[in-house]
Amino acid sequence: MNGDFMKLRRSERMVVISNYLINNPYQLTSLNTFAQKYEAAKSSISEDIAIIKKAFAQADIGHIKTVTGANGGVIFTPTISNDEARAIAQELCQRLAESNRILPGGYIYLSDLLSTPSILKNIGRIIANAFKDEKIDAVMTVATKGVPLANAVANILNVPFVIVRRDLKITEGSTVSVNYASGSSDRIEKMFLSKRSLNPNSRVLIVDDFLKGGGTISGMVSLLSEFDSQLVGVAVFADNAQEKREGISYKSLLTVTNIDVKESKVDVKLGNIFSK
Amino acid sequence: MNGDFMKLRRSERMVVISNYLINNPYQLTSLNTFAQKYEAAKSSISEDIAIIKKAFAQADIGHIKTVTGANGGVIFTPTISNDEARAIAQELCQRLAESNRILPGGYIYLSDLLSTPSILKNIGRIIANAFKDEKIDAVMTVATKGVPLANAVANILNVPFVIVRRDLKITEGSTVSVNYASGSSDRIEKMFLSKRSLNPNSRVLIVDDFLKGGGTISGMVSLLSEFDSQLVGVAVFADNAQEKREGISYKSLLTVTNIDVKESKVDVKLGNIFSK
Repeated sequence: MNGDFMKLRRSERMVVISNYLINNPYQLTSLNTFAQKYEAAKSSISEDIAIIKKAFAQADIGHIKTVTGANGGVIFTPTISNDEARAIAQELCQRLAESNRILPGGYIYLSDLLSTPSILKNIGRIIANAFKDEKIDAVMTVATKGVPLANAVANILNVPFVIVRRDLKITEGSTVSVNYASGSSDRIEKMFLSKRSLNPNSRVLIVDDFLKGGGTISGMVSLLSEFDSQLVGVAVFADNAQEKREGISYKSLLTVTNIDVKESKVDVKLGNIFSK
Repeated sequence: MNGDFMKLRRSERMVVISNYLINNPYQLTSLNTFAQKYEAAKSSISEDIAIIKKAFAQADIGHIKTVTGANGGVIFTPTISNDEARAIAQELCQRLAESNRILPGGYIYLSDLLSTPSILKNIGRIIANAFKDEKIDAVMTVATKGVPLANAVANILNVPFVIVRRDLKITEGSTVSVNYASGSSDRIEKMFLSKRSLNPNSRVLIVDDFLKGGGTISGMVSLLSEFDSQLVGVAVFADNAQEKREGISYKSLLTVTNIDVKESKVDVKLGNIFSK
């Protein structure tokens, strides 16, 4: 919030406070901040918040928590209803099943979906919602395709994201590297993370686009221990049910059950993030 | 908007409509859509919008345009006041000038700034605001560091972003490649763009993190002509005033005027996006 003050009517003030909360999730803001900024009594702000809270709850926009005491204030936690999340994922199932997505080698073209802001925002909401009761300090992903997804989740959780790289860049400074098994080809490769990009003792959510053998995820998990940090969970846009993998617990939006290259056919169902 | 309906009080309805507009910028939504969804008369929705419009204008959140006629509705264009944009950029100047950012070779470490959602959101608002009167179909950048920035700008403009790569990935399908001069070393390199990632006749805004010699930007501009598309403009987070470059017109948030590796000192001033 900048230092300007403005006098608004109640209805206008509610619109402006709503905008602030929507753009500053998971952040404690004192009622005094609003009271000073909008030149209103704290009790009026309190009433505004009560109405916004009810509207946000009814429309499944999110939850507003009031923290009492000297350091109190309000915290907005975005949510998404199960119905809306399922409707979004169902539509993505259909998009993923489009026959022209299959590339030689059985790969699925995802870049169009993962570079459309409205889609990314919704995926971010669904993944963040699944981890909203966890304390998360950072979202981790691997370059390049995971970046927009991690960004989308981090936007909702309002925490930084860190990008693991498969190559060394001079613009990253000192790095820590680990080896990992590149699943599809049984090669051992290296991944790198800038030393200053993750604080020790961080609680980290790993996000990636497509889970196959899980080698990349395992690599990131071993990087976490190099940074004395803890894994909160793993979330992927889609996983491939035909791949064998062990020991990775994850949540997926979509599950690809079959890829038929000859017939240009992909079978997709809702992922395990929707399982009870 | 999903298919659920809900009956809300006026004040609650305004909060919910505000949230919708904030999350769906540059998109025409008919008043009937809101009227049906919230079981209210179109005239009531119209009054709600008038109040929201005034509040958005007063708080410099954005502009709501009303389009009349059968296919009419409202379009929300996010804005940012010059004062707020300058205050944000001034703070980023200070962050950039921190002595521990200088890496061997005179590179500046930026990854922490460009992976923090609240900072990215503000940079996106400032850049999008500078191009809000242009028709833009897509935002283009080069992997990896430009991606979060392009994503942030695309979020505000509500258009897809396309990612040019310096390496070939099998998961991208057919690609088009061009050569470009890698400025710092006078080497000729290749960059690639997936054929299906950009429609012909697109109007494209190029976004990148740090402008040095401009070779990467020139490469992306030549890719645009391969895709029969037009350049709308170039925007960068920071440019280096010490670099010689010709023929590139761009807007920058910050300008680095001097990097003193020995003294670990970076001089930064506001970029040309703030020039009259």
